[in-house]
Amino acid sequence: MTVRQPRVITLLTDFGNQDAYVGTMKGVIAGINPFANIIDICHSIPPQDIFSGGYLLYTSYKYFPKKTIHVAVVDPGVGSRRDIVCVETKDYFFLVPDNGLLSFIVQEERPKNIFRVTNSKYFLPLPSNTFHGRDVFAPAAAHLSLGVKPRQLGIKISQLEQLEIPKPVHKKTGQIEGQIIYIDRFGNLITNITREHIKDLKTTQKRTETSVGKKRILGLCNTYADVKAGEPLVLFGSAGFLEVSINHGNAQKYFKVNKGSKIIIEK
Amino acid sequence: MTVRQPRVITLLTDFGNQDAYVGTMKGVIAGINPFANIIDICHSIPPQDIFSGGYLLYTSYKYFPKKTIHVAVVDPGVGSRRDIVCVETKDYFFLVPDNGLLSFIVQEERPKNIFRVTNSKYFLPLPSNTFHGRDVFAPAAAHLSLGVKPRQLGIKISQLEQLEIPKPVHKKTGQIEGQIIYIDRFGNLITNITREHIKDLKTTQKRTETSVGKKRILGLCNTYADVKAGEPLVLFGSAGFLEVSINHGNAQKYFKVNKGSKIIIEK
Amino acid sequence: MTVRQPRVITLLTDFGNQDAYVGTMKGVIAGINPFANIIDICHSIPPQDIFSGGYLLYTSYKYFPKKTIHVAVVDPGVGSRRDIVCVETKDYFFLVPDNGLLSFIVQEERPKNIFRVTNSKYFLPLPSNTFHGRDVFAPAAAHLSLGVKPRQLGIKISQLEQLEIPKPVHKKTGQIEGQIIYIDRFGNLITNITREHIKDLKTTQKRTETSVGKKRILGLCNTYADVKAGEPLVLFGSAGFLEVSINHGNAQKYFKVNKGSKIIIEK
Repeated sequence: MTVRQPRVITLLTDFGNQDAYVGTMKGVIAGINPFANIIDICHSIPPQDIFSGGYLLYTSYKYFPKKTIHVAVVDPGVGSRRDIVCVETKDYFFLVPDNGLLSFIVQEERPKNIFRVTNSKYFLPLPSNTFHGRDVFAPAAAHLSLGVKPRQLGIKISQLEQLEIPKPVHKKTGQIEGQIIYIDRFGNLITNITREHIKDLKTTQKRTETSVGKKRILGLCNTYADVKAGEPLVLFGSAGFLEVSINHGNAQKYFKVNKGSKIIIEK
Repeated sequence: MTVRQPRVITLLTDFGNQDAYVGTMKGVIAGINPFANIIDICHSIPPQDIFSGGYLLYTSYKYFPKKTIHVAVVDPGVGSRRDIVCVETKDYFFLVPDNGLLSFIVQEERPKNIFRVTNSKYFLPLPSNTFHGRDVFAPAAAHLSLGVKPRQLGIKISQLEQLEIPKPVHKKTGQIEGQIIYIDRFGNLITNITREHIKDLKTTQKRTETSVGKKRILGLCNTYADVKAGEPLVLFGSAGFLEVSINHGNAQKYFKVNKGSKIIIEK
Repeated sequence: MTVRQPRVITLLTDFGNQDAYVGTMKGVIAGINPFANIIDICHSIPPQDIFSGGYLLYTSYKYFPKKTIHVAVVDPGVGSRRDIVCVETKDYFFLVPDNGLLSFIVQEERPKNIFRVTNSKYFLPLPSNTFHGRDVFAPAAAHLSLGVKPRQLGIKISQLEQLEIPKPVHKKTGQIEGQIIYIDRFGNLITNITREHIKDLKTTQKRTETSVGKKRILGLCNTYADVKAGEPLVLFGSAGFLEVSINHGNAQKYFKVNKGSKIIIEK
């Protein structure tokens, strides 16, 4: 006899932690597959904020073991005609409403197969119209973790909904104009600018100049401690994006900016 | 050899997530039963709010596998003479302070046996007077999960404390007057009105009229998307209660109401 | 064949719950040791607050099974020359930045061995400079849980950084002047005064007098219910420290005090 490795099911939702919604989903999963290893990615996505949910899933999904089933429920269209889809990539399974939640991920990890989840055999009986997390996503994920194949969940389809992800703009003046796409707990301003974009600038780490509103930051750092406590810096963060931070501080409060604010890079 | 299914222990408390109280309880459980599958239902119950704790436990408990041990610690009387009880129903075990936390559940799931938990053999040595979650609930739950019987925990008793759960009132005018008993993260206003109450109205889905303060909402919907984004609607939610919601919005902010506010239904 | 007991890895960080940082660490651990039992102690440590992180770890670590690997990442110096250390005590392993996080614990549990964690064989490939939780702590902890020895992680060192933990002062007037070192979710004011300090006062439970600002509380209680709802009391809390509380209330709001505020005890 061999002890089978427990299958990982991750959960990312906008359900918050103040109600019992997430716990209920876990109860449903444990009832179907008692050996599933359920891991929370995040439940504090702002209500209905598909973009942020998609961003956080993108930064984390590939750090999980192969065959992980990623369940993401940021689902303002619950109960409407939006589809629920099961997306299979080389290494992972995703179970999501088809509303653009995978927009970041599909740029990196091509879907091999996409199925519209319709087979009520893998749902709870008499699913509600308002809590598909409990009645559809959780049981379908649990069944997948027991070996049910994505194609058993429903009908093959060929396309996913896409959110528009803003791309940095190369200006004629030689500047790159990006924007803040996410701000984390520490107030780090995460932009849509990658090393690839910077490469085109033909600048050096020392000479790169970053503008946040009217403030300018000279140089690119490798880590927070490259500047003194309380001082601003620019670096490429752990998700590969250019970030503006304050060493031991909070850049959002310092710069008084928000998601969508422009960040301009020049040499 | 067979691998035994890990026993589920759920935790619901008002301990919040800012301290180490919940983690400490899990440490105690893991030390006694390393194979227990501990699942959080909710720890953000407002401090000492037995009613909300009882409501959330009610909406979630039956989605867990049979034999699950539900531990709920919203316990303003910790260290006083209030009892801790182990309640056995057809499918579940509950370990709670005897303060009304099970008031919603016992309407649906009759206690088969109730035991006052007194056997210190199943507690940590020298239990504190202020943290029974760690010193009594966690070890007792862990021992239950290893096969200890509820009757081994203490003395059989026959009654539980009950909270008063407000019931909707049928008015002479033919209206049903309910109230908001819970408001979730999304601002959904959950009332104490069930389909059973509405049936007496002999109305139709289309003709039912709901009043929240001075505002009226016509009709009952099946799901949020039945109205446009930003518009109010009324439906029966995932816990079986009538809810007032805003599609893609927050009904609590929109109606400026609170727990206890009246909701009136008429045909 | 025997089923091995899953090894417990605890996580305590200042990463919060709004991002995907903690979930990502768990993904890394599950990828290396699918049978690890990961338990959250707390992730809501105020950003960069090493003192509070150290306090919470101290109140909880010893309630976990022996051989537990405690991972604590409150790490304002991430990416700088600060060390990451693996500390072995009689019963536990700790994996922490060497910045004083263990200051409370080493007063109680002497380090047997301390290793600077340098062996990149146990890190993720190409570790980032800003997210060692994911790239160093998580994989190193997972390898420890599989049986890797602390000495395999790096070089033996002999000393740990220490935070200054304020000690109560015995005044010539016979008073003991302590201070608030932590305030929990319920607003309980936890001081640095232990039973040991009070013993020197040669007072009795009834005659002890506690001053918080200009307010005085007479006597020491055993539990909250020793006073009426809404009234202040003083007791020794579940971590062994003297606490000022309000029965069914919030002492922080009542006394309008903060961490660092003085608490004076006299007979």
